[in-house]
Amino acid sequence: MRVRELSQTACKRVLSRATVARIACARDGQPYIVPLGVVFDGTDLYSFSTLGQKIEWMRANPLVCVEVDEIDDALHWTTVVAFGRFEELTRTAAHRRARAHAEEVLGRRGNFWEPAAARTTTREPTTPVFFRVVIDTITGRQTGK
Amino acid sequence: MRVRELSQTACKRVLSRATVARIACARDGQPYIVPLGVVFDGTDLYSFSTLGQKIEWMRANPLVCVEVDEIDDALHWTTVVAFGRFEELTRTAAHRRARAHAEEVLGRRGNFWEPAAARTTTREPTTPVFFRVVIDTITGRQTGK
Repeated sequence: MRVRELSQTACKRVLSRATVARIACARDGQPYIVPLGVVFDGTDLYSFSTLGQKIEWMRANPLVCVEVDEIDDALHWTTVVAFGRFEELTRTAAHRRARAHAEEVLGRRGNFWEPAAARTTTREPTTPVFFRVVIDTITGRQTGK
Repeated sequence: MRVRELSQTACKRVLSRATVARIACARDGQPYIVPLGVVFDGTDLYSFSTLGQKIEWMRANPLVCVEVDEIDDALHWTTVVAFGRFEELTRTAAHRRARAHAEEVLGRRGNFWEPAAARTTTREPTTPVFFRVVIDTITGRQTGK
């Protein structure tokens, strides 16, 4: 099986198509992965979640990794991995423009997939935390045609 | 949307069905995710990979997270997240039995999906590193039927 590295442009195309990504954060050397609905605007990845373990860990350590893949079968797949930094888009003046942008790009996508925003009990707070992942590096690999 | 927590038995059933998981490791607070072919034998997760960044990081810090999901659409999905420890199954006497078991469970699955074992150049070493993830905790969530 031949595997090739994707160009930065090709990696960004994969991110642009993605509706679900897996995001990993880490605390005290322990990584934690969750699937998450995302929207890539060509520069940053946008998402939101209710407050919980993931948000708490990313607030404490903003270094994250995002993985997106398109897997048809064992011989036909594409994977893209991005390293970046969590940036919470608060309701403060400093984030006003970025938050409006996040709400706009996230709003464009209907039926947003976000188990992170679904709660198992109704007593938990449901105010969403908006955030973006500022991407530092992206790499991608794809099986040969 | 209603979401329920899965029982330990239900989580293990999801892991048993999985052929592809995402595994995250971490170094100096930076998490790293890769998709990986896996086989769950009811207790541990088995896999293999050629030597590379993932293996080097897990050797340095064995704390990992494994995520498996079954996503139909935004309203119908199951996710399972396991925390565990990377354990390399070397060719030494200490791992002889575990390694034979790994080769057996991995061998049962044909057409094993493992981009981690595919290399982009033929000059890179291709000797596989066999390992298992010893699971400490598993949690799972599923949308209501």
